Amino acid sequence: MKVNNEHYRTIWPDPEDETTIKVIDQRLLPHQFVIVDLRTVDDFAVAIKDMYVRGAGLIGATAGFGMYCAALTAPKNECDSFIRQAAEKLLQTRPTAKNLSWAIERQLAEIGQQKGYTAKVKRAFEVACEIADEDASFCKKLGEHGLQLIKKISEKKGGEPVNILTHCNAGWLAFVDYGSATAPIYAAHHAGINVHVWVDETRPWLQGARLTAWELQQENVPNTLIADNTGGHLMQHGKVDMVIVGTDRTTFTGDVANKIGTYLKALAAKDNAIPFYVALPSSTFDWQIEDGVKEIPIEQRSGDEVNYVSGLTSKGEMETVLVPTEKTLSANYGFDVTPARLVTGLITERGVVAADRQAILKMYPEKKQS
Amino acid sequence: MKVNNEHYRTIWPDPEDETTIKVIDQRLLPHQFVIVDLRTVDDFAVAIKDMYVRGAGLIGATAGFGMYCAALTAPKNECDSFIRQAAEKLLQTRPTAKNLSWAIERQLAEIGQQKGYTAKVKRAFEVACEIADEDASFCKKLGEHGLQLIKKISEKKGGEPVNILTHCNAGWLAFVDYGSATAPIYAAHHAGINVHVWVDETRPWLQGARLTAWELQQENVPNTLIADNTGGHLMQHGKVDMVIVGTDRTTFTGDVANKIGTYLKALAAKDNAIPFYVALPSSTFDWQIEDGVKEIPIEQRSGDEVNYVSGLTSKGEMETVLVPTEKTLSANYGFDVTPARLVTGLITERGVVAADRQAILKMYPEKKQS
Repeated sequence: MKVNNEHYRTIWPDPEDETTIKVIDQRLLPHQFVIVDLRTVDDFAVAIKDMYVRGAGLIGATAGFGMYCAALTAPKNECDSFIRQAAEKLLQTRPTAKNLSWAIERQLAEIGQQKGYTAKVKRAFEVACEIADEDASFCKKLGEHGLQLIKKISEKKGGEPVNILTHCNAGWLAFVDYGSATAPIYAAHHAGINVHVWVDETRPWLQGARLTAWELQQENVPNTLIADNTGGHLMQHGKVDMVIVGTDRTTFTGDVANKIGTYLKALAAKDNAIPFYVALPSSTFDWQIEDGVKEIPIEQRSGDEVNYVSGLTSKGEMETVLVPTEKTLSANYGFDVTPARLVTGLITERGVVAADRQAILKMYPEKKQS
Repeated sequence: MKVNNEHYRTIWPDPEDETTIKVIDQRLLPHQFVIVDLRTVDDFAVAIKDMYVRGAGLIGATAGFGMYCAALTAPKNECDSFIRQAAEKLLQTRPTAKNLSWAIERQLAEIGQQKGYTAKVKRAFEVACEIADEDASFCKKLGEHGLQLIKKISEKKGGEPVNILTHCNAGWLAFVDYGSATAPIYAAHHAGINVHVWVDETRPWLQGARLTAWELQQENVPNTLIADNTGGHLMQHGKVDMVIVGTDRTTFTGDVANKIGTYLKALAAKDNAIPFYVALPSSTFDWQIEDGVKEIPIEQRSGDEVNYVSGLTSKGEMETVLVPTEKTLSANYGFDVTPARLVTGLITERGVVAADRQAILKMYPEKKQS
C-alpha cells in the first residue's frame, strides 16, 4: 500500500544486500517513518517481541525471513542445530499469534528437506519470499470476498456511506500488504463504494490511533478515530453497519483470538444485530485447539504499556508521559477470545464461511486428515 | 476521604471568606494536588464545563454553590433575573448529568420563596450546604447497603479477595465524599473485607487511571489498573466477582447513562453471569424519561480529548502529547446508556432495588404523583 504515494510492503529483502531484511519500525508511526535493517536471529526476535513489527501476517512473514537469516548466519558445521535453536528463540517471542509457529514450522520442514548449507540457505530464502507473497496474495483475495459483503450493504443503503467499525490494526501494516480487516475496505474504496471507518484507538498500544488511522489516511479512506469505549453507543444508535476485525489465531471451531477488547465489540454487535466479520488468511487458523476461550494462550505484557503513552509534543518532539501515579500497578492482557457464537462469518482467501467447525473443515477439506 | 492522610471533601466554602468556594482541580490529578477558588458564575460554569470538577454528585454540589455565588454577586435591584440567567448558564455546561438540573431547580425553588436580597443569599448558602451534606450522607448510606452485597460474595469465597470491576471514577472525587460506586468498596475495606478493584482506565479522559486508582491508593484499597478493553477477558476467566459503576442519569425505568463504555461492560457481565450493580444517590434519578437509550442526551466533547494525552515526563514535568497524526478526525461521545435489562440492581441510599419501574417507584413512592 501507499506511504506518501509511494508503494511499500511491510517487509522486504534488501535488493542490494542479501544479508539484510528491511522492515518499518511501527513503534514510531505515525510521527516517524523509519526503516530498520534486520540481520541476525536476535534482530528478528527483538523486532517481533518489542513490536517493531506486529500483526498476524507480518509476524509470520518476519519469522519466515528470520529463519532465512538463521540459515544464512549459521556456522556451516552446526547448521541444523543453529537453525533449531533459532526456531526455538523466535517461537518464544509472542505466544498468541498462530502465524508465528505456522511460518517457523513451514521453514523447518522445507529447510530440513535440503542437503547441505548452500541448498538450505537458498530454500530458506525462497520459502520466506513465498510466505510473504502468499500473505499478500491471500489478503488481496479475502479483500475481494469481503468487498461483496460491503457492496450488498451499500446497495441496501442506496449508496450512503457504509459505516465499518474495526479494532486494532489488521491493516496492511499487520500483514505484508492489503491487510485482513482492511482488505475489503480498500477494495470497496477503490471500487468507488462509499465507506467510512470507525477506528477503535485500541489501548494500550494504540494500534488504531497510530497505525490504522494513518494507513487509511494514506489511502484517503474516510475514517474517524474513537476511544475503544465508544463502539457500543454507536451501534445502539445505528451508526455502525458492520464490524470487520482481524485475528491472531482462530480455531477450526470458529473461536477468534484478537486484540484485547474485540470480544466486547462482538457482544455489542450481537446485541444490536450488526454483522460481525473476522478476516483472516488461512495461515491464522489453529487446526488443533477446539475451545479457544479455554485453550488459546493469552500474552501478558508489561504494565508500562498501560501507564505510559508516547506522542508528539507541541515542539514536535517525541515524548513519553506517565498517566497514573508511578506506583500504580497495571495488568496488560494482549488478547481476548471471541466465541464463535458471536461471529457472523470468517472472510478467508477461499471465501466467506460460517464460524463453525463443519463449515470451516468443508472449506479446508485437506485439514480433515491432519 | 483522605489525601496524604488528611481528610478532604471535593468542594467546601472557604471558612475565612464567604465569597469563595474551594474545589480540587481534578484535571491535574494525580500528579498535582491544586485547590482552586471559585467566586463568579463564570468561574463555576468553566469549572464544570472544563472538568475541574466532574462526576454526578460533585457537578450537582458545584451547581448548588454556583447558585449561591450567583445570588451573592447579583446586582441587588436585578437579583431575580441575574439568578435566572446564572441558572441558564450553568444548565448549559454538561447535558447528560442529571444532578446538574436537579441542584439548580432545587436552588431556584428555594431562592424563589425568599423575599429580598439578603434572605435569598442566606437561603442559597444553606441550600448549597444541604445539597453537599445530603450528597455525602446519601453516598455513605448507599455504601452501607452495597457493603452487604460484597460481604455475601466474600463469605461465599471464604474470605478470598472479592474482585470488583469499576469504570470511570464514581469515587469520592465524583461526589462530595465517599463516592457512589466506591462507597461500598470503602465500606467493605474498612470493615476488614478482602477486596481488590479492577480499575478501567476510562478513555479518553482517563478518569480511572488518574482519579480512581489514585483515590484507592490514598485509602490503601488494593487495585489494578487495566485498559478499558480488558474487562471482558477478565470476566470470561472468573477474575471478576461483581461490577459496580456510578451513573450520571438513571431513568425511573432503570436505564443507566454512565461514562462511555459502561454498556460494553454490562454486556460482558451479562454474558458471564456476573452481577452488574449501579450505585446512585436518588438525586441522579430522572423521573421523566422512560426510554434512556432513545431519550437521554449524550454529550459530545472535543476530539482533542481523544488525540492528546497528558502526563508526567521523565523530568517530572507535565506535558501533553499528540498520539495520532495532527489531521486525524476523532469523535468523542461522553456517555452511553446501559438498558435496564443488563442491570442486576441499583444501590441507592434507601437500599438495593431492581432496575425496574415498579420496584423503583415502590422505593420512591413520593415520585409517583409527580
